[in-house]
Amino acid sequence: MRSSELSIGVDIGGTKILAALVDADGSIVRRLHRHTPVRNVPAAERAIAELVQELGDRESRCPVGVGAAGWMNRDSSRVLFSPHLSWRDEPVRDRLESQLGRPVTLVNDADAAGWAEYRFGAARGVEGVVCLTLGTGIGGSIILGGRIYRGSSGATGEFGHQTMVPGGHRCACGNRGCWEQYASGNALGRDGAELVRTKSPVAHKLREACHDDPSAVTGALVTELAVQGDGACSDLIEEMGQWLGLGISNLVSVLDPGMVVIGGGLGSAQTELLAVAEAHYRRTLPGRGYRPFAQIRRAQLGSSAGLIGAADLARQSGDG
Amino acid sequence: MRSSELSIGVDIGGTKILAALVDADGSIVRRLHRHTPVRNVPAAERAIAELVQELGDRESRCPVGVGAAGWMNRDSSRVLFSPHLSWRDEPVRDRLESQLGRPVTLVNDADAAGWAEYRFGAARGVEGVVCLTLGTGIGGSIILGGRIYRGSSGATGEFGHQTMVPGGHRCACGNRGCWEQYASGNALGRDGAELVRTKSPVAHKLREACHDDPSAVTGALVTELAVQGDGACSDLIEEMGQWLGLGISNLVSVLDPGMVVIGGGLGSAQTELLAVAEAHYRRTLPGRGYRPFAQIRRAQLGSSAGLIGAADLARQSGDG
Repeated sequence: MRSSELSIGVDIGGTKILAALVDADGSIVRRLHRHTPVRNVPAAERAIAELVQELGDRESRCPVGVGAAGWMNRDSSRVLFSPHLSWRDEPVRDRLESQLGRPVTLVNDADAAGWAEYRFGAARGVEGVVCLTLGTGIGGSIILGGRIYRGSSGATGEFGHQTMVPGGHRCACGNRGCWEQYASGNALGRDGAELVRTKSPVAHKLREACHDDPSAVTGALVTELAVQGDGACSDLIEEMGQWLGLGISNLVSVLDPGMVVIGGGLGSAQTELLAVAEAHYRRTLPGRGYRPFAQIRRAQLGSSAGLIGAADLARQSGDG
Repeated sequence: MRSSELSIGVDIGGTKILAALVDADGSIVRRLHRHTPVRNVPAAERAIAELVQELGDRESRCPVGVGAAGWMNRDSSRVLFSPHLSWRDEPVRDRLESQLGRPVTLVNDADAAGWAEYRFGAARGVEGVVCLTLGTGIGGSIILGGRIYRGSSGATGEFGHQTMVPGGHRCACGNRGCWEQYASGNALGRDGAELVRTKSPVAHKLREACHDDPSAVTGALVTELAVQGDGACSDLIEEMGQWLGLGISNLVSVLDPGMVVIGGGLGSAQTELLAVAEAHYRRTLPGRGYRPFAQIRRAQLGSSAGLIGAADLARQSGDG
């Protein structure tokens, strides 16, 4: 394999920075990770440089793709806003390029994950893909005509903050009733905690698991109990599945993709969530009966999607 | 002017078929109209042919663009579904071409109107345009990268049927709580009728105008009284403006356009609707403060937009 066919993908999360050497088929050759130095930009950029050096020492100067939560400017040279690293309108690409001595491609992490699913995963060859990353919130990306759709200002994909319930639950974004207040790990944790607070006997498994402490309930815990077959937690997942399906109907009615791919920690768990969501989507899509249904598929690349997508975008950038 | 620079646009509405000879700058040279033979396909197609003949006799065989409500198939040769004419998966393009003896371009009417605003109207030269046609319902179109975005199945632009209020007002589409149940001429008529039913003294102007008959209240009547300065009707418009603004926030959060153009009969009326909508949009856009606001503009081409867009698309089709 020519070294130019290899590239490095970096995925900066809220807790870990993942980095990997990836080949042209999207297969990971070698991977490493480090703790994310949250809100310490110089330390984070140093950590990225060290990971890249460690991975890339044998492959001199292969390109690097860096995926991070947040918004980039139009030519992807600056990070306008990033929640984990406190980047605020900074020339991150140039800084990393001079530190690493090789080309760097900056990309939104949800875009990177969606791109990977389009190139190597669930949505290979599909015309028009909407990719949802279902974790603590709802991230997303849009792939149209073989390209990531970034919109006019680079701020597309804010699917989770569409208003779904006017006057509904307050969201960290400042609004009320955002979709991700009804379909996300955080929403599941909030609903589970509410159930524990009622001291309902139907929630005895959940109450046991959190020692009757509502503040100890997380989306991950509810998901885990649902996977184990607990009825109350499965009911919470089912209720969320309906909200998920309704939101998918809204997205499909606007974007009309060929496929909706659902990934992220919550989207990948082996619960009934996706089946319920798909059933509700099929009951609520406007124009159903007169138009084809966009397929709904589980993401295939798991937590490596961001890495793989960032690496592939860096490689393509070098080719172009 | 060379005759090849002229083309004919046809716009099939629920009550009238409009047709015009249009030049390359989008100016109307000559226009005609007829009553729409609703649910009579052969008569409607004859009417189109006669209008085209009448318009085009001096300009032999210039191309024709036909805009109609409904969905086309991918290559726009067939109308899959059209509410006004009962076209149901029929090869309308070929039929019209053989009847007219010249090239015909079929296009969704909202797409045609949006295209006209992008080429000659409010959104000239803007990167990424969402166009809303605010009439009895909400139609829409998306222009991306200098092209009409039609989606995977040709069924984009169903903006009005996004669920905005789960469990809310029943819609003709079969769902509940669709956006156009809260922001459209029909919604305005329903709200006005409700107000008349309460026999509220604040609605005395509206009650007078409809002779205390709720079934006589229309969106157009409420709009007219609001334009005349009636307080109760202005309040209804203001309430609707907030729903309009909230829905625009949802669209912008997904599509991130450079501009949102609002046309249609209700959108074009000289009320406070757009000002209220824009203010509410600015209060509710997710990420406000970290991203630019897409501009909101009133459409410029009025009820001729559909004609002009269809004609322009036909001309470009001929060039390509």
